Amino acid sequence: MRDPDFTLAAGPTAASARTLAALGSPITYHYDPAFLEAFRRTEAKVGRVFRTDNEIILMQGEAVLGLEAAARSLVRPGMPVLNLVSGVFGKGMGYWLKGFGADLHELEVPYDEAVDPQAVDQYLTEHPETELLTVVHSETPSGTFNDCSLIGPIARRHGVLTLVDCVSSVGGMAFDADSWQLDVCIAGPQKCLGGPPGMSLMSVSEQAWKAIESNPAAPRASFLSLLDWREQWHGNDHFPYTPSVSDIHGVEAACDQLLEEGLEAAIARHENAAAACRAGVVEMGLRLWPKSEDITAACVTAVAVPDGLDHEAVRSHVREHYGVMLSGGQGAGNLVRIGHMGPTANGVNPVVGLMALGRSLADLGVTVRLGPGVEAALARLADSRQA
Amino acid sequence: MRDPDFTLAAGPTAASARTLAALGSPITYHYDPAFLEAFRRTEAKVGRVFRTDNEIILMQGEAVLGLEAAARSLVRPGMPVLNLVSGVFGKGMGYWLKGFGADLHELEVPYDEAVDPQAVDQYLTEHPETELLTVVHSETPSGTFNDCSLIGPIARRHGVLTLVDCVSSVGGMAFDADSWQLDVCIAGPQKCLGGPPGMSLMSVSEQAWKAIESNPAAPRASFLSLLDWREQWHGNDHFPYTPSVSDIHGVEAACDQLLEEGLEAAIARHENAAAACRAGVVEMGLRLWPKSEDITAACVTAVAVPDGLDHEAVRSHVREHYGVMLSGGQGAGNLVRIGHMGPTANGVNPVVGLMALGRSLADLGVTVRLGPGVEAALARLADSRQA
Amino acid sequence: MRDPDFTLAAGPTAASARTLAALGSPITYHYDPAFLEAFRRTEAKVGRVFRTDNEIILMQGEAVLGLEAAARSLVRPGMPVLNLVSGVFGKGMGYWLKGFGADLHELEVPYDEAVDPQAVDQYLTEHPETELLTVVHSETPSGTFNDCSLIGPIARRHGVLTLVDCVSSVGGMAFDADSWQLDVCIAGPQKCLGGPPGMSLMSVSEQAWKAIESNPAAPRASFLSLLDWREQWHGNDHFPYTPSVSDIHGVEAACDQLLEEGLEAAIARHENAAAACRAGVVEMGLRLWPKSEDITAACVTAVAVPDGLDHEAVRSHVREHYGVMLSGGQGAGNLVRIGHMGPTANGVNPVVGLMALGRSLADLGVTVRLGPGVEAALARLADSRQA
Amino acid sequence: MRDPDFTLAAGPTAASARTLAALGSPITYHYDPAFLEAFRRTEAKVGRVFRTDNEIILMQGEAVLGLEAAARSLVRPGMPVLNLVSGVFGKGMGYWLKGFGADLHELEVPYDEAVDPQAVDQYLTEHPETELLTVVHSETPSGTFNDCSLIGPIARRHGVLTLVDCVSSVGGMAFDADSWQLDVCIAGPQKCLGGPPGMSLMSVSEQAWKAIESNPAAPRASFLSLLDWREQWHGNDHFPYTPSVSDIHGVEAACDQLLEEGLEAAIARHENAAAACRAGVVEMGLRLWPKSEDITAACVTAVAVPDGLDHEAVRSHVREHYGVMLSGGQGAGNLVRIGHMGPTANGVNPVVGLMALGRSLADLGVTVRLGPGVEAALARLADSRQA
Repeated sequence: MRDPDFTLAAGPTAASARTLAALGSPITYHYDPAFLEAFRRTEAKVGRVFRTDNEIILMQGEAVLGLEAAARSLVRPGMPVLNLVSGVFGKGMGYWLKGFGADLHELEVPYDEAVDPQAVDQYLTEHPETELLTVVHSETPSGTFNDCSLIGPIARRHGVLTLVDCVSSVGGMAFDADSWQLDVCIAGPQKCLGGPPGMSLMSVSEQAWKAIESNPAAPRASFLSLLDWREQWHGNDHFPYTPSVSDIHGVEAACDQLLEEGLEAAIARHENAAAACRAGVVEMGLRLWPKSEDITAACVTAVAVPDGLDHEAVRSHVREHYGVMLSGGQGAGNLVRIGHMGPTANGVNPVVGLMALGRSLADLGVTVRLGPGVEAALARLADSRQA
Repeated sequence: MRDPDFTLAAGPTAASARTLAALGSPITYHYDPAFLEAFRRTEAKVGRVFRTDNEIILMQGEAVLGLEAAARSLVRPGMPVLNLVSGVFGKGMGYWLKGFGADLHELEVPYDEAVDPQAVDQYLTEHPETELLTVVHSETPSGTFNDCSLIGPIARRHGVLTLVDCVSSVGGMAFDADSWQLDVCIAGPQKCLGGPPGMSLMSVSEQAWKAIESNPAAPRASFLSLLDWREQWHGNDHFPYTPSVSDIHGVEAACDQLLEEGLEAAIARHENAAAACRAGVVEMGLRLWPKSEDITAACVTAVAVPDGLDHEAVRSHVREHYGVMLSGGQGAGNLVRIGHMGPTANGVNPVVGLMALGRSLADLGVTVRLGPGVEAALARLADSRQA
Repeated sequence: MRDPDFTLAAGPTAASARTLAALGSPITYHYDPAFLEAFRRTEAKVGRVFRTDNEIILMQGEAVLGLEAAARSLVRPGMPVLNLVSGVFGKGMGYWLKGFGADLHELEVPYDEAVDPQAVDQYLTEHPETELLTVVHSETPSGTFNDCSLIGPIARRHGVLTLVDCVSSVGGMAFDADSWQLDVCIAGPQKCLGGPPGMSLMSVSEQAWKAIESNPAAPRASFLSLLDWREQWHGNDHFPYTPSVSDIHGVEAACDQLLEEGLEAAIARHENAAAACRAGVVEMGLRLWPKSEDITAACVTAVAVPDGLDHEAVRSHVREHYGVMLSGGQGAGNLVRIGHMGPTANGVNPVVGLMALGRSLADLGVTVRLGPGVEAALARLADSRQA
Repeated sequence: MRDPDFTLAAGPTAASARTLAALGSPITYHYDPAFLEAFRRTEAKVGRVFRTDNEIILMQGEAVLGLEAAARSLVRPGMPVLNLVSGVFGKGMGYWLKGFGADLHELEVPYDEAVDPQAVDQYLTEHPETELLTVVHSETPSGTFNDCSLIGPIARRHGVLTLVDCVSSVGGMAFDADSWQLDVCIAGPQKCLGGPPGMSLMSVSEQAWKAIESNPAAPRASFLSLLDWREQWHGNDHFPYTPSVSDIHGVEAACDQLLEEGLEAAIARHENAAAACRAGVVEMGLRLWPKSEDITAACVTAVAVPDGLDHEAVRSHVREHYGVMLSGGQGAGNLVRIGHMGPTANGVNPVVGLMALGRSLADLGVTVRLGPGVEAALARLADSRQA
């Protein structure tokens, strides 16, 4: 089967030609001095992308590896943990935390809402024994976000460590690990950075390291071990296992492009793409999945699938008839997501997803205002160019 | 720093242009139908490379992930396990097994020898309670191999499951999972397949699945879980987490090239390269690390570093002065390894490593018979062409 | 400056990832046996794409080289030649013919029309001394075509040789060199084949060779010589000069993809893309440049620029504000062309060009029915999918 | 058939991964503003590589196009021209000059020698009517060079224009167009620059332009026209025809790497590679083709084929048995050339060619001192590293 003409999904997203060339560059031995330099350069660049001076760990597996590793490293059996739940990934973190023995407490909202930072403050005031707060910055499956710029400082004020899933936000939404006072952050390269999947980009604060090092349950001598990376690689110039040489080149190239563009510019680009996409969705007569535009993520636009249709059928139709690959909700609900991440948060890309979705819904019998929707999206793009 | 002119290391090895192009091909969403096809095709091809009809699992992290996952999945606390140790990786497996609660027994030989299959048979006869045997087929750090064509059937005869580390042998040395009656096998794509690191290629027999499924300690809901892959992906068409799209393309291309060449031809190619390399080493007046040529692996040639020199200094000199990257012994001893894996097991590649090593030793004050060594290696290559 | 997000121009067109990988594959010596095989395979594949058994010549420069070479090779001073002119390239051929000494006669129509085959028949009946007819199949700058399926047989019936500029038609429009009885045909790889510029794909009939060989003015010992290629390469396995190794790999890959898809399927794909684009243009309230839809080429859609605007300003706006690169008319008039060639004749690509153009015209003060236009184009695509 | 393991030929030479990635980067429309920038940047970089402030013309065909175009542009019928002949390319230039109507005079030496600059001075003193001198800097087929650092100033002193074939010298041998006072220079990217074939890199002095512009025989409105490029592209921002987009990217990348390394460093690298190769040839008991080491080119080492053998048979054997592609003499004699150009003028690459050649000659019955030859070459490399 042919590849799609357009990948406008929720990540892995389409990578730039430059990133692909880096992925296809020669594979060297992982202790080749040129590769050692590249690995260290990449760590430094990830730190700049995270806006942090904390230690950077590049775990060599998809972001789920980093999330599991971080949770296992931080959680002691019996540790009181507050988990914020506003979607599938927040919910999943709770299952892990419980499985790792945490004394789990959750603030949960429906999957089309975000957690209120005030509620977090109140909870932590009432539960001063809490040691760790876990939160998903961008809940990719439902296209919403939790405001970590407020939640981070609240947690710090209460002396609570934070574990932040910023997998799909970094590079496309405002993110500032240090000024937001976040302890452990995990991003994926295959989202707004436009890189390959296969790596966990992580930052770990000194406070977090203290907790991890004193945790007898923290993985050691394991693919899941953060401590191995700290001790063997940062302490001893020795990789715990063979790193993914090609992926490192891809991630470095992705960071280079982002830093050359500038973080602010990249974020504005994602926000404009998202705003255009939302404008089109609404004008087309469709419903945005998130309850309010205030909590929509800039990386994907989640659209409720009209009654009587299933997102799988819609997406298959879009892919088969119009060559565009969109995402579903991964369990968050009957929704379709148009990704605008990395290279696809450029130009008219979001409108491509919009018109393919609109025309497909029309094909499937839904009354959509296709033309006006496309016009509204383009008008929004035109405005952002004028600005 | 410039990349080396030649990567003749112990893996990751240099990949072919075709494999690199596949690695740099467009990244699609992991549920794109074209990618789903590619993933399933790759599983089938890995099965052919392993010569097995067992279920294939492609775990999305370097082979160490697969090894840890397999060991954790199989080992119950208190389970009597026989671990064969003839090198660094065998030794490491023992630490894991013990950590996972096994009742560990080991047959250990010096790291320049191989385990005698007769000793295995005798041990299993004397210890019928043994449930699992773990063995490293090719001990890459020391350039030796254990004869799994004999060990596999012995274990099966005793009703013992086998966990085989064939990370660096598959594709370059005879390997036949089914006729050798091996239960769980883990290979790395970055060795004789000439692919990217970042993936564990695994086969699991029905007997092994039974043991894993009945093991309450087997990882579940984890990056380390084999069961997740079986249940979610093979049972439900759902990936446990985002697979490494680029690496899958690279691994498929590497398998394609191997299968087009033919497994027998590829193995003969590796054996000729290794034989030429060994002939040159000996004629140069250097000492092969393995005690006997009968147990030398076809993927790397391990050379003892002459007294008074350290392998790090030798390798740095080779890299800096002659642009060739070789490997050390990763703890197996004071040795240097010339890799001849995948694309570098072709033509005069092994002699390139040999002459760069020889000239560097001469630079560092060792008396080597450089010219005669090169002549001997080339003569061996000439013979293999005539044959 | 960043590359455009979308290249929807009149060629060079965007190439597929597979073609780009072939272009970036290792460069070998041009007499390497693997390259010699690749060169000959590519000739054979070009022949299949042309649907001809005539000799194939791959001249190593952009199609203009092939056109000039063919004209110089065929034209004797004083030779009576009929040149059909319906656009910029037809006109240019006339200047060449005259410059090379031909006794030039032209049938010329305005650049938004096509030459009537009946007029050709009549001319040749009245001028039996004519020896050569030159015609442009697809007049890319104005988006029209001349019907060579009729003109070819007419010329053959009158004993007149044909020199056919099929640069932008081959691979995207019906083209059948042998059944259309065409003598010398020149195509470019950078149009509907989606390959790199830099090569002239040519077929030459035996009758044409006879004329060329007996022409003392035909270039010899020159970069412009067809005879050098025939005598040295086809006669003696010796290239007249170093061929473009990378381009050959790119052209072979482009032909492979076309032949795997099937010529009919590829042509239908281009026709559907063009039909959708035209439907959108008309519904948007814009004017197609060609006088009648019957003579529109399938590779580009030429749109008249509304009064008061200049195509340069329009195209700059489209490129700068919406990231889409369109083409102008190269002297044919005040028009903008949306290319749908090779990979861009897929899915919703043509609509991307259409909406970027429409929105830009709106930005520049033109009243366009943007939404209805996009709707009409998508409706046409939907119809072609249903069929 | 598989590609060779090593391309150590006389050009096209193996390109670096970075250059190949550039060749495989997306194809844009040739009037895309990003491409226009790239084209102009490439012109400027070629000027720096030539060390000239003269106008740079990038003709879009292999260097033979540039040579023919330059000769046709400069030569008026009856113009007295001195052509220096020391090899195949010098001889070929004479045929062209004569064909274009020059009053041709030649200073010719055997193809294993170089023309004496003193003889040139003497000739020009005796023939003050001479208007043009043509010379090949590096006679690639025979591995020799003519000293243009002396010949250029002699010609200028006599008021004679120079046309210099520096196809294979630029980037690997000292070359200084301005201080050597050279008027028209033509280089190929596929030699010491390690780029793709398919382009003529040219510089043209103001004096040369004057001669060309006043020459009624200079090509106009032709693929062969230098004037078209000057007037249309430099005068009017309009390409005479579609440039080779991919090749431009490849040539720019090749120039970037050369300029980042530094011209002096690159030249020293080529000289060391050549010196090592020559040392090995001699010690092996073979004969260098050039009569004296003083006139050996740094880009290839030409080796006389021992009596009784033919270079074709030798090279086929080397390619088939040892995976190395070498070049023949292209008519200069019974010789084999080991290329060390661009990326292959690094590390032990030249010794790879040497040992494959030596072993093949041994296979074919020649007595060669293979080991000592390899030792001598490596010793020379070791010396150059120490320096």
